[in-house]
Amino acid sequence: MRARDLAEPFPVVTLDTDAMQAARLLGSKRLPGLIVCGRDGRPYTVLPGSQVLRFIIPNYVQEDLALARVYDEQSSDELLAKLTTSTVRDVLPGERDVDELPIVDHDATTIEVAAVMARTHCPIVAVVDGDDLLGAITVGRLLDHLLPSSPAKP
Amino acid sequence: MRARDLAEPFPVVTLDTDAMQAARLLGSKRLPGLIVCGRDGRPYTVLPGSQVLRFIIPNYVQEDLALARVYDEQSSDELLAKLTTSTVRDVLPGERDVDELPIVDHDATTIEVAAVMARTHCPIVAVVDGDDLLGAITVGRLLDHLLPSSPAKP
Repeated sequence: MRARDLAEPFPVVTLDTDAMQAARLLGSKRLPGLIVCGRDGRPYTVLPGSQVLRFIIPNYVQEDLALARVYDEQSSDELLAKLTTSTVRDVLPGERDVDELPIVDHDATTIEVAAVMARTHCPIVAVVDGDDLLGAITVGRLLDHLLPSSPAKP
Repeated sequence: MRARDLAEPFPVVTLDTDAMQAARLLGSKRLPGLIVCGRDGRPYTVLPGSQVLRFIIPNYVQEDLALARVYDEQSSDELLAKLTTSTVRDVLPGERDVDELPIVDHDATTIEVAAVMARTHCPIVAVVDGDDLLGAITVGRLLDHLLPSSPAKP
């Protein structure tokens, strides 16, 4: 069993997608994360859902939870308002280590996919064949495959 | 709106739960992670799904993807076999920084919940009231609440 056999269709956003729309997609479809493609259609980055929250929460608030506590409903609306005028490109976390992205070749083994997820702390991996995105594998799908479905407890 | 208002029931496992059963729960219910409670019923730790894969994949394999590539179906079955004789306690990642767990007080604001998720890289937070676990908030639920549901694109 190879990555291509487990890959499923997954909604993608692009660097030019409205940031609000991208964050809302994650919420409404309860996606485990976002695959962000560049203009060439290749995955540019893959973000776990928890990191999509960085679209909204400024770094200084993440660093100081006491600050987060003072945000009332009105001031949190102000944080959200900036999403409506931003694209995904504008709000992506700064760092991107291309060697450490959760993107695997279609030929990757299931254990390789699991190792990449564990290492990058990401619940989805994008599966590519050259320049083409074949789909994605979620941690739920992978565990469903790896663990025998019949409860064979010793 | 406070954490207690957003918290929903969430399946929990304990330190004594069979590791295979815990990993399978995550796969079959497509949970974003696991809440692990101690004998006192309080959350002991909260694991993102990607870190539950560490139950299966030895550290040396995570560190060296070339090693992961050589696992064929048979040898990956051997990795999985150890799950059937382990408890969650046996397979938890070693490190646990109690100050950095995704656990919030019932009184936490929504922005505080978001900051904790972003900071701990965890798609679920456990919501407690003293010693009682009230439930959990997933990143999907939080985004659904934070972002207006009517598509009000400018």
